[in-house]
Amino acid sequence: MKRDLVAIGDLSDRDIMQLLALADQISSDMRSYAHVLDGALLATLFLEPSTRTRLSFEAAMLRLGGRVITSSDAKTSSASKGETLADSIRMVSAYSDAIVLRHPHAGAARLAARLSTGPVINAGDGGHEHPTQTLVDLFTLRREKGHLEGLFVVLYGDLRFGRTTHSLARALVRFGASVLALSEPGLNLPKYVVEGVRGTGAGVGEVEVAGLEALVGSRLRGTLLLPPGLGATPSTLTLLADQVDAIYVTRLQRERLPRGAGEIRALPLIDRVFLEAAPFRRAVVLHPLPRVDEINRNLDDDPRAAYFRQAAGGVPVRMALLGTLLGAFPALEAASAGLALAPETAVCAEPACIAATEPQAVPPEWFRGVDGGLICAWCEHAAT
Amino acid sequence: MKRDLVAIGDLSDRDIMQLLALADQISSDMRSYAHVLDGALLATLFLEPSTRTRLSFEAAMLRLGGRVITSSDAKTSSASKGETLADSIRMVSAYSDAIVLRHPHAGAARLAARLSTGPVINAGDGGHEHPTQTLVDLFTLRREKGHLEGLFVVLYGDLRFGRTTHSLARALVRFGASVLALSEPGLNLPKYVVEGVRGTGAGVGEVEVAGLEALVGSRLRGTLLLPPGLGATPSTLTLLADQVDAIYVTRLQRERLPRGAGEIRALPLIDRVFLEAAPFRRAVVLHPLPRVDEINRNLDDDPRAAYFRQAAGGVPVRMALLGTLLGAFPALEAASAGLALAPETAVCAEPACIAATEPQAVPPEWFRGVDGGLICAWCEHAAT
Amino acid sequence: MKRDLVAIGDLSDRDIMQLLALADQISSDMRSYAHVLDGALLATLFLEPSTRTRLSFEAAMLRLGGRVITSSDAKTSSASKGETLADSIRMVSAYSDAIVLRHPHAGAARLAARLSTGPVINAGDGGHEHPTQTLVDLFTLRREKGHLEGLFVVLYGDLRFGRTTHSLARALVRFGASVLALSEPGLNLPKYVVEGVRGTGAGVGEVEVAGLEALVGSRLRGTLLLPPGLGATPSTLTLLADQVDAIYVTRLQRERLPRGAGEIRALPLIDRVFLEAAPFRRAVVLHPLPRVDEINRNLDDDPRAAYFRQAAGGVPVRMALLGTLLGAFPALEAASAGLALAPETAVCAEPACIAATEPQAVPPEWFRGVDGGLICAWCEHAAT
Repeated sequence: MKRDLVAIGDLSDRDIMQLLALADQISSDMRSYAHVLDGALLATLFLEPSTRTRLSFEAAMLRLGGRVITSSDAKTSSASKGETLADSIRMVSAYSDAIVLRHPHAGAARLAARLSTGPVINAGDGGHEHPTQTLVDLFTLRREKGHLEGLFVVLYGDLRFGRTTHSLARALVRFGASVLALSEPGLNLPKYVVEGVRGTGAGVGEVEVAGLEALVGSRLRGTLLLPPGLGATPSTLTLLADQVDAIYVTRLQRERLPRGAGEIRALPLIDRVFLEAAPFRRAVVLHPLPRVDEINRNLDDDPRAAYFRQAAGGVPVRMALLGTLLGAFPALEAASAGLALAPETAVCAEPACIAATEPQAVPPEWFRGVDGGLICAWCEHAAT
Repeated sequence: MKRDLVAIGDLSDRDIMQLLALADQISSDMRSYAHVLDGALLATLFLEPSTRTRLSFEAAMLRLGGRVITSSDAKTSSASKGETLADSIRMVSAYSDAIVLRHPHAGAARLAARLSTGPVINAGDGGHEHPTQTLVDLFTLRREKGHLEGLFVVLYGDLRFGRTTHSLARALVRFGASVLALSEPGLNLPKYVVEGVRGTGAGVGEVEVAGLEALVGSRLRGTLLLPPGLGATPSTLTLLADQVDAIYVTRLQRERLPRGAGEIRALPLIDRVFLEAAPFRRAVVLHPLPRVDEINRNLDDDPRAAYFRQAAGGVPVRMALLGTLLGAFPALEAASAGLALAPETAVCAEPACIAATEPQAVPPEWFRGVDGGLICAWCEHAAT
Repeated sequence: MKRDLVAIGDLSDRDIMQLLALADQISSDMRSYAHVLDGALLATLFLEPSTRTRLSFEAAMLRLGGRVITSSDAKTSSASKGETLADSIRMVSAYSDAIVLRHPHAGAARLAARLSTGPVINAGDGGHEHPTQTLVDLFTLRREKGHLEGLFVVLYGDLRFGRTTHSLARALVRFGASVLALSEPGLNLPKYVVEGVRGTGAGVGEVEVAGLEALVGSRLRGTLLLPPGLGATPSTLTLLADQVDAIYVTRLQRERLPRGAGEIRALPLIDRVFLEAAPFRRAVVLHPLPRVDEINRNLDDDPRAAYFRQAAGGVPVRMALLGTLLGAFPALEAASAGLALAPETAVCAEPACIAATEPQAVPPEWFRGVDGGLICAWCEHAAT
């Protein structure tokens, strides 16, 4: 039975720990894995711009001895002749042993996984999921701090369109870390992410800043903290001295903002001065990259600047994943059955949902969220 | 002596059968061919958008243990600095052991074959030839039906710009299959294709629909049937019950239609209802892909829908071809001398002919068609 | 200690001769080098259009048994999200063992070499340096003529923006060849190139055409000759009968000319008639390609037309370089310390200098030229 990686939730806790441990081994002795995937062929399909993710997947495959075919320019591809994603996937699945897909529409990787005979790995589906980035983030936090349980991590910046924070928030609380979401105004964590955390049984606290200190001091585990508004800026967090283990900074995704959105930068720049504030003195700084201007370059040589080490982790983590899904390493646990579907047949109204953009190929599928409302199984947006 | 594949006519009947048999073997045991081309280097030059053909060639080369360099975006290539195809080919020929070329101009691959020291494979030269697609089509028909001789195949849709049908029509009649050309209005098989079939000594019948039944009933072999006009729609073919072995559907090549062409879709959509009609009950459905809306997706799970199996055949067929042209498998027959050239020196007036677009590099070459008229050896259009 | 190749001046005379000799060996027996770089991974980053250089580097790496990841379209890369070159290099350096970089800004490769943990090879940084082209040019001249010392080479055409002539001029005089610069009007060798030659201790002569004969007749070695103006057209060089060993022709870089520049073509077309003139009867013709219309195609079959042989040399030369920098062949000499930097901290005003385009990442660095003026260490333009 093939395994895909569409969402970080597809992986059990044990799966994730197995992959991170394997990535650690690979990282310390990369050359000895050079023939693990001899004869295997990976297709990387990038229908939305990316360099970092594509190159790290290709490097990972080649470092394992495998080979790669790639299509990375939507304008020169069959998509420009009007081909659907569904047909493209069926074609590429016939040519290769596994597919890595980046696509602008939420749910695209889930569709691909259903149609492909080999494993599909989601390398980003619109603003929805990007699970291998989450594995890389967890890998980095674990290497930098020695463990995940009990960490206190601040997510910082654009938490609405910065999809890497969505998966990371859910994963961190699973492993007993606490997360404080510090968003630019209007760019909060989407509701479905918060519901997803709540759905795991973890705590979600809408706390005032004044209450943070007590909470953190009590070594709260696995809680997502959502300060209601801008009160929780770094300057008001000084009581949390030395409590923050990591700050995860994200780029403002200007290309996804509505036209006409004015200046929404309100959080301060991350630089040496910022890290001198009491809460952050021990914090390592992560960033999924590319960065624009949210981290000052004067921080690059600081030992707490972990973002380039984080980028380097992309190769061993993806080597661990590719080798596992292609059968060269011990298998993951059997995939869970997933949520029961609701009988609704309405098409999702979310314009960037694959069910809306390829209605001929994609059957409407819905499940019920923890609040009883309908959630589209493709893009995880609530029905309107 | 190197062999190229510029046109399907370059291959003898024995060559084709040898390649299809080899592709069958490869297809059943692909992993055992993983080192056949170790150390060989293929260049794929795609100066016109394509994903399917390029990826299947690259997959084929990599599956044989070879390696690939690729240039697939005309806008970032030397062509954007004004380099001619002739110079590009001489360069790439010096770098690699074989070249796969897609180019917007008819005759481009013939020019490349002449200038390259290694084998050249035509992956589509404008609206002219696409011979490996024909090999894939023949491979699929043979696997689906067990043989080619005596098959009755309907070509359906845009037969003017859909170049895959041009080579296929000629090849099918060579192997004793009969072909019925059902075109959208105004998108008939070009005259040079019909003349090409006639030139092989095969029959060409411009039959009324009323006469089709008798013809087909008589187990006519190797004939191209051209119904004069729209009379021959599927609904008028009901007398041919169970006679059609395959229907080969093509996409309307809207990007090649003259500007201002109105709606010319007249043939019905291929779907389950269509295949319930008497002539088509036993027909498998082929399509070179990408499809747009000429085949309903509700057909995809029907066992007669062979188009995804057809796409999958692209890899073993191209493995057979690459391995043969690069000397790893038994050689093809010696290439035939070709037609004697006429002494004319006028440059071809066809705007998309390589002789017109690169007159400095391409000498005018003409031969005489069966009707005695001059035919450009590069693009096979008649002199005007 | 890693070695990079940013400028031809990074290589000692012995380094260059070692690489050319190795390229000769590889060229005569390419297949026996097929596993020299097994397991090594090269990243080719082309942020400006190129096909020839990229494909020859990739062919070289693959011919050595290595593997390649590539990013060749600025529009689909992280650069389109606002990422700096500095960050891109740190990322790619973590993924691969070596980087080949083409970039529109002068100094980009120098920056990359400083940030990357593995070797960086400059494949063209704006109008500045393109050192591997120079190695290929020297390789070709040595093979065509048997030696470099004492050769008399004419540089011909656009010597201002045709960056390949800049490095070549400097390298030729180092090896005891003499160079005559015949420029299109207004497209002379830049001043920093002339100063660079002068800085090596070689002679620079601004000679009248009338004086050329005597100079060349005296077997002058290692001199750069700059005729003051258009007097030195080929037709006035007839006294130099049989003296010219090679003519190095360059394309007019129209994409770099100021808008509104009128017709500046003044030098005659290179063709068979040109080569019948007394000075050029023994001259081989080189061209870095792509050519547009500066060499007539009727010359292609002439034995003196060496430009396609020159292109073919790109692969063995780059194989020699890649294998050397990645440790598979004997090491180069230790890099020289370079010029002492001046204390100035002003940012370079040259708009295409990497110090001007990425001021956050690039510290201003200046040295003093032979005339005592300040020279930007990144782009080698004089301070204004």
